Amino acid sequence: MKPVAAAVEPMGSPGLALRDEVTKVLPRISANAAATEQARSVHPENVALLRATGFLNAFQPALFGGLEVDIHTYGTILIDIAEACGSTAWAMGLLAQHSHMIGLMSPEAQHEIWDDNPDALASSSVAPFGTAEPVNGGVRLSGRFGWSSGCDHATWAILGFPQPDPLMGGKTGSHLAMVPLADGNTPGYTIDDDWQVAGLRGTGSKTLVVDDVFVPHYRIESLWGLRVGQSQGYGWHPGDIFCSSFSHYFACGFAATALGVARRLLDVYTERTKTRVRAYTGANVGEGAPAAMHLAESYHQLFGARSSLEADWRAIAARSRSGELPTPDEMAHWRANQAYVTKQAIAAADRLFTASGGTVWFDDQEMQRLWRDVKMTGAHTYSDYDVATQRHGRHLLGLEIDPALF
Amino acid sequence: MKPVAAAVEPMGSPGLALRDEVTKVLPRISANAAATEQARSVHPENVALLRATGFLNAFQPALFGGLEVDIHTYGTILIDIAEACGSTAWAMGLLAQHSHMIGLMSPEAQHEIWDDNPDALASSSVAPFGTAEPVNGGVRLSGRFGWSSGCDHATWAILGFPQPDPLMGGKTGSHLAMVPLADGNTPGYTIDDDWQVAGLRGTGSKTLVVDDVFVPHYRIESLWGLRVGQSQGYGWHPGDIFCSSFSHYFACGFAATALGVARRLLDVYTERTKTRVRAYTGANVGEGAPAAMHLAESYHQLFGARSSLEADWRAIAARSRSGELPTPDEMAHWRANQAYVTKQAIAAADRLFTASGGTVWFDDQEMQRLWRDVKMTGAHTYSDYDVATQRHGRHLLGLEIDPALF
Amino acid sequence: MKPVAAAVEPMGSPGLALRDEVTKVLPRISANAAATEQARSVHPENVALLRATGFLNAFQPALFGGLEVDIHTYGTILIDIAEACGSTAWAMGLLAQHSHMIGLMSPEAQHEIWDDNPDALASSSVAPFGTAEPVNGGVRLSGRFGWSSGCDHATWAILGFPQPDPLMGGKTGSHLAMVPLADGNTPGYTIDDDWQVAGLRGTGSKTLVVDDVFVPHYRIESLWGLRVGQSQGYGWHPGDIFCSSFSHYFACGFAATALGVARRLLDVYTERTKTRVRAYTGANVGEGAPAAMHLAESYHQLFGARSSLEADWRAIAARSRSGELPTPDEMAHWRANQAYVTKQAIAAADRLFTASGGTVWFDDQEMQRLWRDVKMTGAHTYSDYDVATQRHGRHLLGLEIDPALF
Amino acid sequence: MKPVAAAVEPMGSPGLALRDEVTKVLPRISANAAATEQARSVHPENVALLRATGFLNAFQPALFGGLEVDIHTYGTILIDIAEACGSTAWAMGLLAQHSHMIGLMSPEAQHEIWDDNPDALASSSVAPFGTAEPVNGGVRLSGRFGWSSGCDHATWAILGFPQPDPLMGGKTGSHLAMVPLADGNTPGYTIDDDWQVAGLRGTGSKTLVVDDVFVPHYRIESLWGLRVGQSQGYGWHPGDIFCSSFSHYFACGFAATALGVARRLLDVYTERTKTRVRAYTGANVGEGAPAAMHLAESYHQLFGARSSLEADWRAIAARSRSGELPTPDEMAHWRANQAYVTKQAIAAADRLFTASGGTVWFDDQEMQRLWRDVKMTGAHTYSDYDVATQRHGRHLLGLEIDPALF
Repeated sequence: MKPVAAAVEPMGSPGLALRDEVTKVLPRISANAAATEQARSVHPENVALLRATGFLNAFQPALFGGLEVDIHTYGTILIDIAEACGSTAWAMGLLAQHSHMIGLMSPEAQHEIWDDNPDALASSSVAPFGTAEPVNGGVRLSGRFGWSSGCDHATWAILGFPQPDPLMGGKTGSHLAMVPLADGNTPGYTIDDDWQVAGLRGTGSKTLVVDDVFVPHYRIESLWGLRVGQSQGYGWHPGDIFCSSFSHYFACGFAATALGVARRLLDVYTERTKTRVRAYTGANVGEGAPAAMHLAESYHQLFGARSSLEADWRAIAARSRSGELPTPDEMAHWRANQAYVTKQAIAAADRLFTASGGTVWFDDQEMQRLWRDVKMTGAHTYSDYDVATQRHGRHLLGLEIDPALF
Repeated sequence: MKPVAAAVEPMGSPGLALRDEVTKVLPRISANAAATEQARSVHPENVALLRATGFLNAFQPALFGGLEVDIHTYGTILIDIAEACGSTAWAMGLLAQHSHMIGLMSPEAQHEIWDDNPDALASSSVAPFGTAEPVNGGVRLSGRFGWSSGCDHATWAILGFPQPDPLMGGKTGSHLAMVPLADGNTPGYTIDDDWQVAGLRGTGSKTLVVDDVFVPHYRIESLWGLRVGQSQGYGWHPGDIFCSSFSHYFACGFAATALGVARRLLDVYTERTKTRVRAYTGANVGEGAPAAMHLAESYHQLFGARSSLEADWRAIAARSRSGELPTPDEMAHWRANQAYVTKQAIAAADRLFTASGGTVWFDDQEMQRLWRDVKMTGAHTYSDYDVATQRHGRHLLGLEIDPALF
Repeated sequence: MKPVAAAVEPMGSPGLALRDEVTKVLPRISANAAATEQARSVHPENVALLRATGFLNAFQPALFGGLEVDIHTYGTILIDIAEACGSTAWAMGLLAQHSHMIGLMSPEAQHEIWDDNPDALASSSVAPFGTAEPVNGGVRLSGRFGWSSGCDHATWAILGFPQPDPLMGGKTGSHLAMVPLADGNTPGYTIDDDWQVAGLRGTGSKTLVVDDVFVPHYRIESLWGLRVGQSQGYGWHPGDIFCSSFSHYFACGFAATALGVARRLLDVYTERTKTRVRAYTGANVGEGAPAAMHLAESYHQLFGARSSLEADWRAIAARSRSGELPTPDEMAHWRANQAYVTKQAIAAADRLFTASGGTVWFDDQEMQRLWRDVKMTGAHTYSDYDVATQRHGRHLLGLEIDPALF
Repeated sequence: MKPVAAAVEPMGSPGLALRDEVTKVLPRISANAAATEQARSVHPENVALLRATGFLNAFQPALFGGLEVDIHTYGTILIDIAEACGSTAWAMGLLAQHSHMIGLMSPEAQHEIWDDNPDALASSSVAPFGTAEPVNGGVRLSGRFGWSSGCDHATWAILGFPQPDPLMGGKTGSHLAMVPLADGNTPGYTIDDDWQVAGLRGTGSKTLVVDDVFVPHYRIESLWGLRVGQSQGYGWHPGDIFCSSFSHYFACGFAATALGVARRLLDVYTERTKTRVRAYTGANVGEGAPAAMHLAESYHQLFGARSSLEADWRAIAARSRSGELPTPDEMAHWRANQAYVTKQAIAAADRLFTASGGTVWFDDQEMQRLWRDVKMTGAHTYSDYDVATQRHGRHLLGLEIDPALF
């Protein structure tokens, strides 16, 4: 029994067929993990393999050839990919998840993106880093947009900027602009190769640079609108998964990546410990009680975390199928629990790494990379457990959410 | 959304009908909780109400009128009862669960127990406290058998003692003897009212005293045999739930009680915190970040614990339906994970109690009782997480389990 | 080496002589611990013994016969008393510590209290529970004042109420009134015997009731004034210990009690574990790795906590000797660190109690009382670590302290 | 007040003068920290500066020009150096500490090492990695000796190998051989530059390679003998610090480095947090309760850890002055507590790093290096808390120490 095995098997094609296809390519993805880190960008073979399976089209509208996989199946596949390579899962997952968000945008935008290239992908930087000057028919956007995971493999970007939002009574709110990659005559964003970090290096989360580029209204959505079913394309696609807030689909990959990497670290720990001896005494480490106790506790921690994440995924899928948007209770719970899951995965992995002695600190040790990668999954804003508990706790107490807490 | 709501609804009558019946009597059970603690015995009204719902027959063989409810449904009902009264859930749960074990014993024993009184219940003390002298046709048993929860409401007892076990190649192993309550001419056990403790007082887990009582072979089972499908009555009842080791049914109530009590404590905390003010400053406690953060973290912790426990219950039920005994991997996982769930429930509850100031320490405060009760769920041998992690960790490492670890 | 042995021996008579005297009576105090809990009041013999040693005069001004012991010596003695009986240490410690506060009040008040009875003691309830009507020469005070530890053994009470404070620019601030025990013709407070709690029962922290009693100005001090060297009697006594804020002397007993009780629990755990066997297997618990690991970790945790508390006591004593009031950095640090020490003591004790199985839950087990007592030391407002970290953290960040956080 | 300020000022020249000298060079050492990591070797300027202060001679016998500084003063200096550069503190500290061990070896060896070059230093690899063939007058040693911190700056190495030990009744025990750096005609060890790791890179803990080199008896000591005052040079030097087991002096730098690096990380966190804003909301992070709470808790944790370590250093120094070897209780306590201190320092630092968001993960951020460095201090065998608690716990329970636990 795998500690993070699916507690309840997700149901329904085309998800299961996709899962089978992805399973076949996992050994190659795993073999490219070190090279992905080295290159600070997902290995091209990994991208090509996942493209061939259909994974990158998992959340794309059927109208454009997408699979519209349910989120439970999608999430379990992503965990599998993260076991093979955390950076690949994080970056490719985000590209796939963005297609769900695009499916909520205006039909014009979707046709522009996918008519000629049904496999087009978008990376993102959704914090409101940009500045936008209102002009006739749209805005002129500028800014540096940090940490756009997977941008090397996309031709569009979803970029955040603030402006007054009619849906929020005119208060300033975040908006998202679809911008193409600059290409010869086409104005757009360029990539600043500045992703020099200690974890998830392979995600290639570089900075996108935009200098006074026009973005038409049909390629701009209010973040609030995307959350509450008031985006320009909401209701256009009949598929279940588009009857939803964008948030839970957009953000489902962070905790999944954390779980997958932690799961892999647990396996590496188990194999190492079976044969590990102490330098000073020659004693077998695995025969000692602490080695077993740490392993079991991390296993249980991962199992609990995964069980709860799958429970949420099932609930999100059920809510999408219900034809109604999620309730405030559901939104608050799903938002916060995924941060808890990430925190648990990190703690489980850190316990095992800490119990593994000095050898695992060498650069040629897989466990060292796994540990850095899983720790960094917690550094994303969406994984910030202090924010998550303040938001969710206040909700449970019936209090207003502090707007300083995103 | 309740933090410990069922992640996946359990299915199938007669479980759901039972759940509805139990739900109706929960307010009375809750109203009797303080009196149950005071009397150090489950309130007679609670026993009568649960009997009327059929709960006490949940795991009894259909042949004798039992419901043979699946374990997932049963467990969710037990959590609900524990929210109302932890002691009632613990003690009545054990009585109900013991009927599953009896269903694996010899047909002679089952007829003797249930033919005249289909509602007969047994309490237990399964540690090998007894001494048995082999005699013709059985043994003569003596001993003091501690902590027999719910014994005030039973007429039989399941009592442990060691003797050579042919199923274990003749090595000494634990055995269980069915002994009746002494009654006029009938020799049997008597009750020593010595349950003076700081938690779960209402379970009335008193000492049973046996002085040289004859027990025939057909009322003796090897503990090992009950675990591995080699008891005298294994295979006699066609119902799914009897295609199993006794262990997972017998022991399913400890973690369920912990979760239910912790869940109730979380609700009490939430309500208190909404209106709590600081003595020195008059400040509203709930408006402060720590109050919200503690609440959310305990909520997530309970949700994860419950999600994993339900996942295991579903797996146990599926294994029972499969017609095959559980694998060693499953046995090791289920045994250990329930201890982890209990530990999580205690931690979640302790966090909230600790954050509740001095007033909750008064004897008239429900939260104080809830805290003592949930802490004590961790004191059972089966909840010992040090034992659980050593056992499970060694299993995961492919090592033999130390027989000193039960 | 005792885990909470004094890291550096405190110096200077009369402290060391007092310590020797107290050491002699500890066995009697320990023998009275269960009776103290039962009576919900410190055993009269414990009071008499401590009085005879001079402990109750430790912080009393020399002018009235007090010993003016340095805080480091005092604290180490209090830890010793708490090892023998937590309730005695908490309650008798507060009575002794209050004499330091009285030593900062007006000479008139001190003469009134001690001239006729140099052994007079005061209990307290310093949260501003009272209401005061200004009248000529003072106020008329009314209110119910909760949790006045040791009140059975005192003839005065220090009671809190709010009124405008000239020292704070006229803003409302807490004040403390000295009120005598009602006695025949003397109006004063009466005791409501309502201390029915789950921990530190023996402190007898009952509610004091005051109904429209006149308190003259010379028996009223501003809490703020007592903190910053602006009380009516500040500077009157030449002894070192009165060159100080009242706070650190007043509050030094909470963490000391926690450490002493936890230390005793560690000893009980060590002795029990040496001979403890598992009910199911007969295995010796102490031979298992977890028993040793829990013991060592709790030992280290207590050693670190005590080392830091002693470091602070030495610093407080040195600051008193310096003739200058403490700096804001010192005040912030000492206030917060004692809450951390208490939290560590509780965690160390809870780890060992949790690892001790079910037997320790019985009412006749010392460990059970120790566990309840040490847990409750954390329920005092001054031990609230959420408040302590918010206050101290903001201070370290150079931010204002939120007045809602006392 | 610095959270890790000296709780009690260490006393006595020449320690204090040395401390003043080292303080002057700390800004340069800090400025070289990044280059030290980059070069995977302590920056030559750092070595030269520390040599000029006399720090590298702190524990060297006075006969050869050493300072014989007491361990409390030495430790506080080392913490200061670790605040400036963890790798420099670790590596240079070990070189300095080794001179204490050499001071316990045979006079012949000491003359050979220091007569011509009083500043000669030795690195080490004390695990018994070597194999030794007994020959006339000594052994012929071979082996690869891993992780010899600071070896680039030494001309001798202390290398471990097993052989029968008369002091242990002939049982095989670890021995240490003094071997010179190979140099032209002199046979000795060579350095394999293989230190490619994720933390404490600047320690340059490379592998020393020895191929069939003769080592005479006077340059070989039994590890056991060095622990219990039975080495060839024990008693030769009259200075206090040589009346001791080698262990506590040899190993005093690990926890000190952890504390210093963690302390620096706390300062960086404090400064960053004052001005940090959230990307999505622009909210000031420092104004939120969690930022303050994490800071205060880590501060208290470091303060407690440092207080306890200083208490131990004072006790070690006092024991050395007493003229008697430490008791078994002292040995067990000092050995284990330094591992607890290291664990606390890591936890304090990890809490703050985790609360610092994504930016700190970039390679140009000091906090990222500090975090990797402090985490790695826990990977040393001597910091293994599982080993420490098993050893110490068993000692406290009066049980034999398992020889598999070093």
